[in-house]
Amino acid sequence: MTPAAPQLGILGGGQLAQMLALAALPLGVRVTMLEPDDQAPARLCATHLHASYTDAAGLDALAACDAVTLEFENVPVAALTALEGRVPVRPGRELLERSKHRAREKEALRVAGARTAPFVVIETGTDLDGALVRIGGPGILKTSELGYDGKGQARVSDEAGLQAAWDEMGRVPCVLEGLVRFEREVSLAVARTPDGQVAFGPLIENVHRNGILRTSLFLEGDPHEAQAREIAGRVAWAWGLEGLMTLEFFQLPGSELLVNEVAPRVHNSGHLTQDGSSVSQFEAQVRAVLGLPLADWRPLLPCAMVNIIGMEGTDGQPLEPDWAGIDALPGTRLHLYHKAWRARRKLGHVNLVAPDARILRERLAQLERLIP
Amino acid sequence: MTPAAPQLGILGGGQLAQMLALAALPLGVRVTMLEPDDQAPARLCATHLHASYTDAAGLDALAACDAVTLEFENVPVAALTALEGRVPVRPGRELLERSKHRAREKEALRVAGARTAPFVVIETGTDLDGALVRIGGPGILKTSELGYDGKGQARVSDEAGLQAAWDEMGRVPCVLEGLVRFEREVSLAVARTPDGQVAFGPLIENVHRNGILRTSLFLEGDPHEAQAREIAGRVAWAWGLEGLMTLEFFQLPGSELLVNEVAPRVHNSGHLTQDGSSVSQFEAQVRAVLGLPLADWRPLLPCAMVNIIGMEGTDGQPLEPDWAGIDALPGTRLHLYHKAWRARRKLGHVNLVAPDARILRERLAQLERLIP
Repeated sequence: MTPAAPQLGILGGGQLAQMLALAALPLGVRVTMLEPDDQAPARLCATHLHASYTDAAGLDALAACDAVTLEFENVPVAALTALEGRVPVRPGRELLERSKHRAREKEALRVAGARTAPFVVIETGTDLDGALVRIGGPGILKTSELGYDGKGQARVSDEAGLQAAWDEMGRVPCVLEGLVRFEREVSLAVARTPDGQVAFGPLIENVHRNGILRTSLFLEGDPHEAQAREIAGRVAWAWGLEGLMTLEFFQLPGSELLVNEVAPRVHNSGHLTQDGSSVSQFEAQVRAVLGLPLADWRPLLPCAMVNIIGMEGTDGQPLEPDWAGIDALPGTRLHLYHKAWRARRKLGHVNLVAPDARILRERLAQLERLIP
Repeated sequence: MTPAAPQLGILGGGQLAQMLALAALPLGVRVTMLEPDDQAPARLCATHLHASYTDAAGLDALAACDAVTLEFENVPVAALTALEGRVPVRPGRELLERSKHRAREKEALRVAGARTAPFVVIETGTDLDGALVRIGGPGILKTSELGYDGKGQARVSDEAGLQAAWDEMGRVPCVLEGLVRFEREVSLAVARTPDGQVAFGPLIENVHRNGILRTSLFLEGDPHEAQAREIAGRVAWAWGLEGLMTLEFFQLPGSELLVNEVAPRVHNSGHLTQDGSSVSQFEAQVRAVLGLPLADWRPLLPCAMVNIIGMEGTDGQPLEPDWAGIDALPGTRLHLYHKAWRARRKLGHVNLVAPDARILRERLAQLERLIP
C-alpha cells in the first residue's frame, strides 16, 4: 500500500526502543532491534535480535534495514564501524561520538554558538590545578563518558574535594562544570531529515529529584520557546543532524538559556508528547530517520508527565504507586515498560492531559501525591 | 510493578486485534491471539498462536490467560465451548450468539426496550408471503449470519424481487428490514466491567460509501448523545454485557434513534478515539475485559476519521492515497494495518484532530480529497 513497508533498525531494546516501535507500527514501519537483554521491553512489539551490540549476524540484520537509529548514545564504536557504508545510521557516527563525550560535546556546542556553563576538561592530574578558580567557584565533577541519571557526578567545593572526587572516579577523563544558578530546567527536541527538513518539539519544563527526571510540563505559549528553537536549530545544522536530538537547558535569571547537555535521541522529558494529540517525539524520530515528511510536534492541549521510578520504603520493600488513584484522576494515561522492579529504575510514566493550564496544574499536584 | 502483568487472549488477529494489542501494552498487559492467517496484522505486537480458531493447543493457550476477548463476532461455537469454565470470555457466549445473528439480535433489542426498523424474520418460503406488506413497503433482505460491510444484502421492492433475492442467497435464514428514512447514521460504544462499572464512548456520526464506512466525525455537544447513551446502557444491562459493544443507530427526522445493529467489540467508527487525547475504544475494551478501572472515553478535541480502503482505477490498478498530501495536512495521524492491498479491503485509516469544529470540517473536506 505504502511504497513498500520501510524497515527501521534500532540499536538497543529498552523502553525508548519499545515506544519507538509502538509509534512506528501505525506508520506502516517494521522495527528490528539488536539488544542482548532477553527481557528487553521492545521485544513485545519488534523483531528481537537477541545478541550483543557487536554481534556480526545481528549487525548484518540491521544492515539490511532501510535505516538504523539508536535509543542510547553509548553505542560501541565497533558496531558503528560494522554498519558503516552498508546502511545509514542516524544520527551518524560523528554526532554520536560528540554527544556521548561530555567534553567534546561542550566544545562542539560552543563552536556552534550555543552557550554552556563554564567548564574545564580534566584529563590529567595537572588539569585539576586552578580548575575551580577557572570555573569561578564550586562545581560538579562529571565523568566525560557513561554518566546518566545523576550517576558519575560529584559536587566539589575545594581543591581537596576535587582531587578526592576524581580519585574516586578512577581518574577517568572528566569535565568540571561551574554551578549555575538557574530558574528552571527546560528541554526541546529538534529533528532533521536527511534532505534537510527541520521540525521542533515543544518547550518542556522539567523537575528532577535525586538526579532523575521526576516531572515534565508543557504549557502553551512558553516565552522561552523561540530562544530554545533558535539554539537547537543552530546546533542541528552545525552538527549535521540526521534524526532527532534533545537539548536540555538551564534557564538563567536573566532568562538566557545555557545548554546543559544533548541526547542524540528521544528523551524522557518528551514522553508527554505521546498524549497531547499531536505527533509524539517517537513518531518524529521514526519519521526523521526514515526521511518521511515531518512537521513540528507541539501538543494541542496542556500536558504533563510523572515518572514511575523504583522506590523502596524504609523496610527495603517496593513502594507502589496508587494505581486506582491514578486511574481515577481524569486525563491520566498509563505507560508501563514491562520491566522488573529495581530500586531507582525507570519502570513507566503517567501522562496527564487537561483542557487548560489551571486544571493541568491542579491535577498534576494530585498525581504527584499518588506516585512515590 | 503492577499486580502481575495481566494476560489478555484475543480470538482473531486482524487490525482490531492489532490495535487492541497496541493499546494493551502501555497498560502493562500482554496479549496472545489465536489466528490462522500467518500474515495477521496483530502478529507484529502480540504473541501469535498460529492455528485455526478451534485448535486444541491454541485454545489451551488462550485458556491460560486472565480473560479472553474477540475482534469478530462469528467465533465458532466449538471455540467458545472449549473455553467454557476455563477462562472468562468477554463478551460471553449468549451475547455473542445474539449479536452474530441478525434476527435474534433484533428480537433481543426489542425485548431490551430499544427500537429498531420494522422487520420480518425469513426462515422458510412461506415467511415471504406478505412480508413486504408487514414492513410497510420496500425493504432490504439481509442474511441473518455472516454479513458485513454491505455483503449478504439486497434491496427489494416487490414480491418477485424478494423471492429472487432469497433464492440468490441460497434460501438461508434472513431478515427483511423495512427501509428507514434517516437523517444520519451515528454510533456509540458502551463498556461494562465484570463488577458492573459502565462507561461510554462518544457519539460519532458516520458516512458510508458502497456499504463500507468512509468517514466518522466526533464533535462536542451532540444533542443526541444522551438518548444514545440511554439506549446503549439499557441494552448493556439487559444483555449482561462484559466487555465492550458498539451500537449503530439511524437518526430519524423526528430525532428518534433506531438501533440498526450491534457489534460486540470495538468498531471501525470508534477509531477516531485513538487520537483525541482521551482513552481510545481499544483501551476501553482491554480495561473492561480485564476488570480494570474504566471511565467514559470522550475525546477532548474535535476529531474525525477517513478509512483507507483498497480502491482500483478503471485499469484495475490500485489507486493510492496522496500520502504526501495527508502528511502535509495539519492534525492527521496515519494508522496502517500492514495488510497487502486487495480491492474493497480495509488497509488503514487516517485520524484527524483539530482545535475546533470549523477547522476540523475544513480539513476533513481536504483529507477526503486525498484518499480515493
